[in-house]
Amino acid sequence: MVKKSPLAPVRFPKIPAISGVSIASISCGLKYKGRKDLFVASFDKGTKVAGVFTKSKTASAPVDWCKRQVGRRGARALIVNAGNANAFTGLAGEKAVRRTVEWLAKVLNVPRSQVFVASTGVIGEILPDDKITRSLVGLKKLLSPYGWADAATAIMTTDTFPKGAWRSVRIGDADVIIGGIAKGSGMIAPDMATMLSFVFTDAAIPTDVLQTVTARAVDKSFNAISVDGDTSTSDTVLVFATGAAKHPKISKPNDTKLRAFRIALEEVMTDLAQQIVRDGEGASKFVTINVSGASSARAAKKVGFAIANSPLVKTAIAGEDANWGRIVMAVGKSGERVDRDKLAISIGGTTVAERGTVVDDYQEAPVAKHMKGQEIDVSVDLNIGKGAATVWTCDLTHGYVSINADYRS
Amino acid sequence: MVKKSPLAPVRFPKIPAISGVSIASISCGLKYKGRKDLFVASFDKGTKVAGVFTKSKTASAPVDWCKRQVGRRGARALIVNAGNANAFTGLAGEKAVRRTVEWLAKVLNVPRSQVFVASTGVIGEILPDDKITRSLVGLKKLLSPYGWADAATAIMTTDTFPKGAWRSVRIGDADVIIGGIAKGSGMIAPDMATMLSFVFTDAAIPTDVLQTVTARAVDKSFNAISVDGDTSTSDTVLVFATGAAKHPKISKPNDTKLRAFRIALEEVMTDLAQQIVRDGEGASKFVTINVSGASSARAAKKVGFAIANSPLVKTAIAGEDANWGRIVMAVGKSGERVDRDKLAISIGGTTVAERGTVVDDYQEAPVAKHMKGQEIDVSVDLNIGKGAATVWTCDLTHGYVSINADYRS
Repeated sequence: MVKKSPLAPVRFPKIPAISGVSIASISCGLKYKGRKDLFVASFDKGTKVAGVFTKSKTASAPVDWCKRQVGRRGARALIVNAGNANAFTGLAGEKAVRRTVEWLAKVLNVPRSQVFVASTGVIGEILPDDKITRSLVGLKKLLSPYGWADAATAIMTTDTFPKGAWRSVRIGDADVIIGGIAKGSGMIAPDMATMLSFVFTDAAIPTDVLQTVTARAVDKSFNAISVDGDTSTSDTVLVFATGAAKHPKISKPNDTKLRAFRIALEEVMTDLAQQIVRDGEGASKFVTINVSGASSARAAKKVGFAIANSPLVKTAIAGEDANWGRIVMAVGKSGERVDRDKLAISIGGTTVAERGTVVDDYQEAPVAKHMKGQEIDVSVDLNIGKGAATVWTCDLTHGYVSINADYRS
Repeated sequence: MVKKSPLAPVRFPKIPAISGVSIASISCGLKYKGRKDLFVASFDKGTKVAGVFTKSKTASAPVDWCKRQVGRRGARALIVNAGNANAFTGLAGEKAVRRTVEWLAKVLNVPRSQVFVASTGVIGEILPDDKITRSLVGLKKLLSPYGWADAATAIMTTDTFPKGAWRSVRIGDADVIIGGIAKGSGMIAPDMATMLSFVFTDAAIPTDVLQTVTARAVDKSFNAISVDGDTSTSDTVLVFATGAAKHPKISKPNDTKLRAFRIALEEVMTDLAQQIVRDGEGASKFVTINVSGASSARAAKKVGFAIANSPLVKTAIAGEDANWGRIVMAVGKSGERVDRDKLAISIGGTTVAERGTVVDDYQEAPVAKHMKGQEIDVSVDLNIGKGAATVWTCDLTHGYVSINADYRS
């Protein structure tokens, strides 16, 4: 058993029941012995769905399927397996998805086109989907509004803890719940990470509006994290809105009645995204990188990721070494507009460099002390514009190498 | 003392004297105790110079200086120190370069504008250039046509072995020597790597022609390697041509009389570039990645680097794990045009996947055996065009993390 990440939250949150959603977690024996590895959700009629997917050109068969179905009609079911990504499996992969969808549609008596599928695990191995379909017998009796911790555990691969988050907000005079789970700890980079996240709400939101607010929230959360700069073939974020809550009608993404919901959705996603970083393979430190003064928000994010993805920056942080020269290097390689002689860097609130050189009388002691903590803050001010962005990452440790040098074998 | 890389060549090559070039290696005590850390070269009048530099937006003061001087007039001297990169040092860095140049120009009695400078080591610390200038007293007596191994050793930082290469070719009926040294083992990525390389020849080649053939050779050699995807602030390749050889006049880069020279220059640079990869921090395996069937050569190189820079691919190789799914992932994230269902992958000459899925009756044994060797070959055929490229990298091991988590402290 792998040791839980030192950066893990103390406990899994108490996600309440979400009206219109029933869930079940099953052990189907795909790869992991003695643990649940299949998660199924069933949604009441009228549930809307939005999705954001990997930009990989070698996306998995389940991603292909979900991309085609999302935005067309509603959603009645979701099935997620861990242990095999069903990626780069050609026609066999496509057939495995179709058979899984058919079975689940039959068991739940819902249209096939409203069944969503996600798979995570090894790439390139043919998915023995009969193990999945066989385990769906008796599913209906297992479905219940509770069991989020089990669900978050069933979708784990190299994760060391289950990830969940939730918020309660008001739309008009109705209380609405947003609850979500996620998995991911390696192959994490923007657009998207090897991560799956499923968010559920009882809000009543039309598909196009749901898609817009989802995409915006993903951009600030899941697409603002990186563990190793690698991008998975399987990344999927799906948001399901059952519409069970009785609140005033929403018709536009910018509707002021939806403001609290938008914020809470971003908070739930950011919470989940940060948990993924906290479970970064081998991570011993959680790193927040704030970039300001860039020519645009997009440029700021790119500079942030150049820092977050630099193996030299990440190993220096692992070594608790205030080697800020590597931050300069990473900013320089970002390709974004930078004026070296205006650049300012601070670590843990202490200004280290400004106007392109180390500050007079630089005292390393407070910075060295900060580097010994578990939460590292790096701020870079490019001082050339107003673009700003925050990205999150973790350090690169021996643990990362150990986990990935013998993950499959 | 750090252990020599297991991938190091058996011995340093016997680079002969190059007419018009005198060299000296000195211990100036910048950072390293008990070893030489300063390299100086003096060139006869009429020496031409070409250069290719880092694309970093936070380039070092010496890079700024060389960029300004290269291509203007000739070169009479070169000075290179290890231990301090004089990067991100603002006005102080610029002044340090100017003082160093002035001193060397005075000692050798040459124009300041024809003195070239390079520095490698820690970023952000002010360079105590008085240590350099003080050690130039008595330089003239030290200059000699021999001592390439010492020179290659003097410019090392985290390198575990000195890097040199040479070729002899004919231009017309004259023999010409091309000899070069290089340093670099971390912060290595294209455009350019944290690497310095200086190549010397007695050929007589006009500046513009020399620049063209240099840029082409760099593109196929130094800009086709990666250790960790990080790009230094200091990367510099300079080629000095003294013109001492008596051969027919060359006036165009594509002159057929220059053909053997062009090939040999690329060979010397590729040899040096591969030695840098073989000295990659913590490297235990040398990896050649051939990409073919891409939409263009540029696209092929980008796909190659997506594989070469993927921490997941590199750790799998370190673990001798034939986890080719990660190669699929890396191809997918390259952003280049890829048709998943046409993709073919082979490892060590064994076809693993084709037409977007694992081959029928895939036998892992020969691939697993190949993964246990020191020289790993990965070939990817995108099967959509004629673009091809080769890039070289190394694996990502515990050694990389160890070296970089405590390099500076």
